[in-house]
Amino acid sequence: MNKKVITLGDVMMRLSTPGNERFLQASTYQVVFGGAEANVAVSLAQFGLDAAHVTAFPSNDLGKAATAYLRQTGVDTSHIYFQEGRLGLYFLENGSMQRASKIIYDRFDSAFANFSGEEIDWDKVFEGADWFHWTGITPALSQKAADLCLAALKAANEKGLMVSGDINYRRNLWQYGKGPLEVMPELIRYTHVIVAGLSDFENCMDIEAKDFLDACHEAKKDFPQIKYITKTKRESISANHNTLRGSLWNGVEVFKSNTYEMTQIVDRVGGGDAYIAGLIYGLLHYPDELALEFATAASVLKHSIPGDANLVTVDEVNALVKGDNVGKLLR
Amino acid sequence: MNKKVITLGDVMMRLSTPGNERFLQASTYQVVFGGAEANVAVSLAQFGLDAAHVTAFPSNDLGKAATAYLRQTGVDTSHIYFQEGRLGLYFLENGSMQRASKIIYDRFDSAFANFSGEEIDWDKVFEGADWFHWTGITPALSQKAADLCLAALKAANEKGLMVSGDINYRRNLWQYGKGPLEVMPELIRYTHVIVAGLSDFENCMDIEAKDFLDACHEAKKDFPQIKYITKTKRESISANHNTLRGSLWNGVEVFKSNTYEMTQIVDRVGGGDAYIAGLIYGLLHYPDELALEFATAASVLKHSIPGDANLVTVDEVNALVKGDNVGKLLR
Amino acid sequence: MNKKVITLGDVMMRLSTPGNERFLQASTYQVVFGGAEANVAVSLAQFGLDAAHVTAFPSNDLGKAATAYLRQTGVDTSHIYFQEGRLGLYFLENGSMQRASKIIYDRFDSAFANFSGEEIDWDKVFEGADWFHWTGITPALSQKAADLCLAALKAANEKGLMVSGDINYRRNLWQYGKGPLEVMPELIRYTHVIVAGLSDFENCMDIEAKDFLDACHEAKKDFPQIKYITKTKRESISANHNTLRGSLWNGVEVFKSNTYEMTQIVDRVGGGDAYIAGLIYGLLHYPDELALEFATAASVLKHSIPGDANLVTVDEVNALVKGDNVGKLLR
Amino acid sequence: MNKKVITLGDVMMRLSTPGNERFLQASTYQVVFGGAEANVAVSLAQFGLDAAHVTAFPSNDLGKAATAYLRQTGVDTSHIYFQEGRLGLYFLENGSMQRASKIIYDRFDSAFANFSGEEIDWDKVFEGADWFHWTGITPALSQKAADLCLAALKAANEKGLMVSGDINYRRNLWQYGKGPLEVMPELIRYTHVIVAGLSDFENCMDIEAKDFLDACHEAKKDFPQIKYITKTKRESISANHNTLRGSLWNGVEVFKSNTYEMTQIVDRVGGGDAYIAGLIYGLLHYPDELALEFATAASVLKHSIPGDANLVTVDEVNALVKGDNVGKLLR
Amino acid sequence: MNKKVITLGDVMMRLSTPGNERFLQASTYQVVFGGAEANVAVSLAQFGLDAAHVTAFPSNDLGKAATAYLRQTGVDTSHIYFQEGRLGLYFLENGSMQRASKIIYDRFDSAFANFSGEEIDWDKVFEGADWFHWTGITPALSQKAADLCLAALKAANEKGLMVSGDINYRRNLWQYGKGPLEVMPELIRYTHVIVAGLSDFENCMDIEAKDFLDACHEAKKDFPQIKYITKTKRESISANHNTLRGSLWNGVEVFKSNTYEMTQIVDRVGGGDAYIAGLIYGLLHYPDELALEFATAASVLKHSIPGDANLVTVDEVNALVKGDNVGKLLR
Amino acid sequence: MNKKVITLGDVMMRLSTPGNERFLQASTYQVVFGGAEANVAVSLAQFGLDAAHVTAFPSNDLGKAATAYLRQTGVDTSHIYFQEGRLGLYFLENGSMQRASKIIYDRFDSAFANFSGEEIDWDKVFEGADWFHWTGITPALSQKAADLCLAALKAANEKGLMVSGDINYRRNLWQYGKGPLEVMPELIRYTHVIVAGLSDFENCMDIEAKDFLDACHEAKKDFPQIKYITKTKRESISANHNTLRGSLWNGVEVFKSNTYEMTQIVDRVGGGDAYIAGLIYGLLHYPDELALEFATAASVLKHSIPGDANLVTVDEVNALVKGDNVGKLLR
Repeated sequence: MNKKVITLGDVMMRLSTPGNERFLQASTYQVVFGGAEANVAVSLAQFGLDAAHVTAFPSNDLGKAATAYLRQTGVDTSHIYFQEGRLGLYFLENGSMQRASKIIYDRFDSAFANFSGEEIDWDKVFEGADWFHWTGITPALSQKAADLCLAALKAANEKGLMVSGDINYRRNLWQYGKGPLEVMPELIRYTHVIVAGLSDFENCMDIEAKDFLDACHEAKKDFPQIKYITKTKRESISANHNTLRGSLWNGVEVFKSNTYEMTQIVDRVGGGDAYIAGLIYGLLHYPDELALEFATAASVLKHSIPGDANLVTVDEVNALVKGDNVGKLLR
Repeated sequence: MNKKVITLGDVMMRLSTPGNERFLQASTYQVVFGGAEANVAVSLAQFGLDAAHVTAFPSNDLGKAATAYLRQTGVDTSHIYFQEGRLGLYFLENGSMQRASKIIYDRFDSAFANFSGEEIDWDKVFEGADWFHWTGITPALSQKAADLCLAALKAANEKGLMVSGDINYRRNLWQYGKGPLEVMPELIRYTHVIVAGLSDFENCMDIEAKDFLDACHEAKKDFPQIKYITKTKRESISANHNTLRGSLWNGVEVFKSNTYEMTQIVDRVGGGDAYIAGLIYGLLHYPDELALEFATAASVLKHSIPGDANLVTVDEVNALVKGDNVGKLLR
Repeated sequence: MNKKVITLGDVMMRLSTPGNERFLQASTYQVVFGGAEANVAVSLAQFGLDAAHVTAFPSNDLGKAATAYLRQTGVDTSHIYFQEGRLGLYFLENGSMQRASKIIYDRFDSAFANFSGEEIDWDKVFEGADWFHWTGITPALSQKAADLCLAALKAANEKGLMVSGDINYRRNLWQYGKGPLEVMPELIRYTHVIVAGLSDFENCMDIEAKDFLDACHEAKKDFPQIKYITKTKRESISANHNTLRGSLWNGVEVFKSNTYEMTQIVDRVGGGDAYIAGLIYGLLHYPDELALEFATAASVLKHSIPGDANLVTVDEVNALVKGDNVGKLLR
Repeated sequence: MNKKVITLGDVMMRLSTPGNERFLQASTYQVVFGGAEANVAVSLAQFGLDAAHVTAFPSNDLGKAATAYLRQTGVDTSHIYFQEGRLGLYFLENGSMQRASKIIYDRFDSAFANFSGEEIDWDKVFEGADWFHWTGITPALSQKAADLCLAALKAANEKGLMVSGDINYRRNLWQYGKGPLEVMPELIRYTHVIVAGLSDFENCMDIEAKDFLDACHEAKKDFPQIKYITKTKRESISANHNTLRGSLWNGVEVFKSNTYEMTQIVDRVGGGDAYIAGLIYGLLHYPDELALEFATAASVLKHSIPGDANLVTVDEVNALVKGDNVGKLLR
Repeated sequence: MNKKVITLGDVMMRLSTPGNERFLQASTYQVVFGGAEANVAVSLAQFGLDAAHVTAFPSNDLGKAATAYLRQTGVDTSHIYFQEGRLGLYFLENGSMQRASKIIYDRFDSAFANFSGEEIDWDKVFEGADWFHWTGITPALSQKAADLCLAALKAANEKGLMVSGDINYRRNLWQYGKGPLEVMPELIRYTHVIVAGLSDFENCMDIEAKDFLDACHEAKKDFPQIKYITKTKRESISANHNTLRGSLWNGVEVFKSNTYEMTQIVDRVGGGDAYIAGLIYGLLHYPDELALEFATAASVLKHSIPGDANLVTVDEVNALVKGDNVGKLLR
Repeated sequence: MNKKVITLGDVMMRLSTPGNERFLQASTYQVVFGGAEANVAVSLAQFGLDAAHVTAFPSNDLGKAATAYLRQTGVDTSHIYFQEGRLGLYFLENGSMQRASKIIYDRFDSAFANFSGEEIDWDKVFEGADWFHWTGITPALSQKAADLCLAALKAANEKGLMVSGDINYRRNLWQYGKGPLEVMPELIRYTHVIVAGLSDFENCMDIEAKDFLDACHEAKKDFPQIKYITKTKRESISANHNTLRGSLWNGVEVFKSNTYEMTQIVDRVGGGDAYIAGLIYGLLHYPDELALEFATAASVLKHSIPGDANLVTVDEVNALVKGDNVGKLLR
């Protein structure tokens, strides 16, 4: 029987300039939808898992379009709520060579940010589910969103789900009057798999560490329920050429994945979410070390696909893990 | 020497689905910029007048792109202010046949709506200007915008400019705690040319009249500075086929323009703004009756052009007034 | 609780030339998916009903894409089976003015045509369902498809579902060795709502009648379980301009709907399927006469939308029935 | 055996704005190739005749692209000469509704205008040919082009070919120092089928007539070799809606064709050339009156097709002549 | 006088997703036409040779479009036959980085596969020809196609033409009941230039060899008429980055070409066909070693051009052979 | 207060094939406008300077569109003159990998080339200006253009402006009867910053030097007013991969900038103009060595942007100079 994963978070309309056009040049935008958590659900649905995303959309045609987008990818949209409000947006300009890519967010005050979620029956949402995933973006949006996230976490823990959280600290968010240290530790306390780099440890867990392993040990002291901590290391040679490697601490040791050269990046947005989706799939089906390789390979493939979402199958990821068919022409 | 016209108001990014696609179908959006007042400035710039638009944009690439759009059309953008905030947006789905067109606004809380305008030197803005144009959308956005509009109106009157105002009552706006009757009458008191239909008279001037002429007489009593009142009458046979006629009261009599059949409408958004721009140009250069014909013909031509703006010349409008070249192939 | 409708039939990839380009000119094709029965399911899903489509697709990325398309529109795709084989295709060239539109079919030997359907648990498919819809295209494709259709019909009747069938006789199909009179009457015997014009009566029921009412009476004699017979009348003034009217016989009398002028047709493919979907919705929710008006108005709106599917809501159809908002700009 | 037709004339690259965009708005142009005479050849090739076009192109990739375009349509390109020089261009803006379409020519000094044609072996060009077609554009371009046209006409007459000439007077051309009355009469003297309206008679034959029939009689006096004179009458209700009717004088009487309403014109450029191609085909295969109907119907269908060329078959034209399939959906 | 080359084989419509979109994402497809043998003809036509392609197309607008495509490129299409049936298709998804490209074939049962070719007058087809080229795809399609290929080979040998054959073994074909070893050896017996890698030798000539040179020697024993054997070696670093080198055995020795780095591949489909066209041109005009360099350079340039066909000139290939203008901007 | 720079020169419409299509394949062209000098003005306007471009355009919609393009980028267009004539054009085919890019010019006889400029009040043009920039393209176009350039140079020197000149020798120009050595030395005599490589020294200054430094010394002898000489060195590994380094001689020493790898070039046209704009900005604001680094980094960024113009800000250039944000994703 398929594993089932639940994700929670806001979904934005993404408006990107075509090709390598700058914002100043664009007379059309490409339209897709994405959000850190929904991107994970979409990727898991491509892997064949049952994935449901919980969110709120405005009750207008844009909310419908966002829902249709998620449905198309195979995500269960029966836990989407329609509210007064607006759809969050972000504008993306693809860089090239030495020129950086740029994102302009216009996501404040979205229907999700104003969503209390009182009508959600978490018991029903989590029925039959194996895993719940959240990110640090949700509690950074508004008090309501932080409360909603906490409610979900408590329910998931009660149901005995495995919980992963991508700390994902972003300074530009957190504008509703609270700082991450006031909010995040309580949420992390309900979480078993943490995605965090050194600045996330510092900003959201008040842990200053000399390196990743040290940070893991400190985090384990403060948050003893944590089972895994993971992060990716990306080097940007240019906007088109990055390297990527994942690391996974399983409470015992730190594994480091193969380092991939990505020399013709099509779209790097959502690369981290693809990694997490890969890791969730991997931890549900493989030993730790292979799970990490699966996660990193999944993230690499994401960089070859336009849009936020990682539209690849388990077989495609595993082929890359094994080094098969790399860049071939499959007939 | 060219006449000079100043306009004030918010400008939005317009995101429209291509062709006749519904919001649910669109994977790209066409991007232009528009706003009721800026559309007037753009049209007047095509007519060869000096047109300057006063507004505030977010100090990011989207604000720059909006500015570049206005500059491209020939509008003077030296009175645009860059502020923290967001750019207002609207989404447009073009109807066809019996299916109506739809607009979804996402314009609240824009940089302009939060703009106090204290740094504006109105004396300098209005230097050498002949005309100032505003609409009822501005005071409907926020208290700050209403205050800004009033300040502009007072300065324009002090400078002796002719002032036109498009009442343009929209129920969905006016969400900042005041109603139109608390705000609009004071603004109208500084205005000489009014664009208003019966519902505008009622909602913004508290005038219930049995017909347009009656409303004009009532308005003249309450607002004796008014010189002209105008409106258009549109009938929608289908989304592609409308008829249009303008009416102009000049304090003495009501002129009615030619009625045009518009049987293959390309884009009706901005049709009213094109009418007003035509009327301003007409009143500055022609006798009243011809001014009205010019205004109506200008508006008709707008319906043949994609985007908010009426990119036609004075010669093109006058050719239509005279019935020359209608639908021909000019080599 | 929502009504639930099940449809059965092949779904093709539709490749259409852009704008008014001829096949000889096209360097790109627009890609959507459609089929007479799936189009009904898609339309009903837009109306808010639970709609599930039963079909077989090739187990490759094209089959996945077709599934994703149906999912996106809200159709339940859990009864889609993946088989060896190919996806049926059709190529569409949009006419204009006096120039006719053209369809080139390439649908033979599709995965669905070769699908025995033995693995289908019809009991489960029809669980909780109110209505089953089929068309004469399915039994025309292959012996297997005809057998599958019969199996579905028997199961639907056992479950007590209302059954509608669009006779839809097409001479170019029926190439597997049997003629419609050998196959269709048995299928019609399990059907309560028939869509048929005079040539359908003749070719599929062996009924030669002098007019529609006469044909209805004859059909009722031969197929006493029939409750409703319906058809549409279309006149083609040009490729862009048609008129449309529906007729419905309810066993007692023939209702005729409003006749609509469609003067700027965007896409007429699927107009008949939109009518049937409208009628199914109408008969499930409204009195007969209103059901017919709903069906015809739904079909009219379809002609304004690119693609096979009628992406309109119940509210939009009812607005047209009432004559509201026709061709307006809704803000 | 197929009839064979030779045409002579310059071919331009056509750069048109997409959809209904004005020149000021376009960020892309559609690219096709066309010229009054080549358009005739292309249309005749679609009708299944052997059609060869004689011209000169610049010996660069643009000349190659123009050649490839003609080859693609089935025109024999073995008599195209490659020279130093530039390719003529024209820019097209499609009007809509009351807004006229506009063409900006940039065709002077093309490779063809500077082409002496001394290397042409007219005997070989006309081998096996039945018909030669020229237009008044060629002698208007340059002295060399006028000389080339005369040489071709003499050779065609020697070979006994039927010759048609579209007088097509355009004031903007004729800039090389001679006027039409100095050049055209000699060319017309070698021509048997003349396309001319009243202003053509006046400007190119010095015939002022009170009506078309009168002009035909006068022309016959001055140019006794003339066998047919023809013209079309177009009324422009709007840029999208024209009417069209053809007239043909065969030395005995004037036939007038059916008058067609063209209510959704896609592209009217080349409509006259399509008419002439239809007339050539018609006179080669049908009685005079049917030839005229064929010509007019062919021209009507051209208006439904983007580009200069009339990509329709004989069957499609004859269907329209008979009123079959008008605006239908052919499966 | 130009050399003349005849090719024989099926031509498919190619439908490719735009940019780097996956099949799941595409709402448009790019349309071109291609086939292993026709691609050779197209390339040779660009090189200025007389190239004619023999095939059968369905007698519908898709067959016409395929013909027009070949004509456009300069290929002689007078030996194309129009039959009942369908046009073969293939769908292409372009990979990027580590993600492989994918082709989904839908080519069975095409008009060509069902074409007996009895009406072909091979004597006329081969009149004045110097070379005939076939591939192992044709005999793999159907018994009729295999018979047709054999008939062509016999006629070509009788006429004394040089014959090349690309063995091109593909396991997915060969579904009509015969295996390659039953069919290919007889065809190879009429062939002088063989394109084959080790698996081709094994599957189609029953030759298991330890390396290419060994295979050549074995092949020469079994097929003494063979004069040249060639192959390319491609390494896929990524979908965008391959290396390419050609090898040519001329009965005496094996030449190896320059190895090219292709770091930004635009489209690798047809790279092998471009190589063969280059080799045919080379062997007809240059010494063996230079012919090989020409072939490899031609193939490299193909990878920079979208579509199946290698639209480059002899001068462009020779410039690359000499290392001139590599990646420059030519003004 | 902003520095102000004046540029003089012709502006062409640029028509480029989409993606990597060859001229033979393109059915659409991308349209922008550019010219060596105007590109400098556009880049300086992005840097926030006051930049005005002096030129002449045809008085038609194409001239208007070119003007609108310049205005959009922020360039002052009040010194553009509208004349009879044509707009110069160039066609661009983007290369890839080993395949070179190609430009076909069609710029002769443009409105600018025929523009005497007698109506220009140079005193007014240069009022408040700090810098004047010209290139060797202008005097190469026509005698009138050469005269105009000289007049501008004299006026600029009288006003005390800093003057830069890009020698930019192109053999294909210079067709009006004079050679560069008859014209350029006099113009150079009014110029303080020279952009020149060895072939420019030779062809335009009659200086044969063994290396750049030697050439600088020689030039200083002949043209003692020269203060700076600069050039770039580009190596083309492929059409996508170049390296770039700038050199600047300041009368004392030669600085060499960082060498940049540009591995995914989007558009190299205008790279030299971007360098010059960067150098002008740099020399106006920074020490010499930093000015050179700024210039080179600016040019590198240009290669990442489609179109002729370098749409980057001072901050973006300085970030690259410092190595910040290279190829990152800026949120």
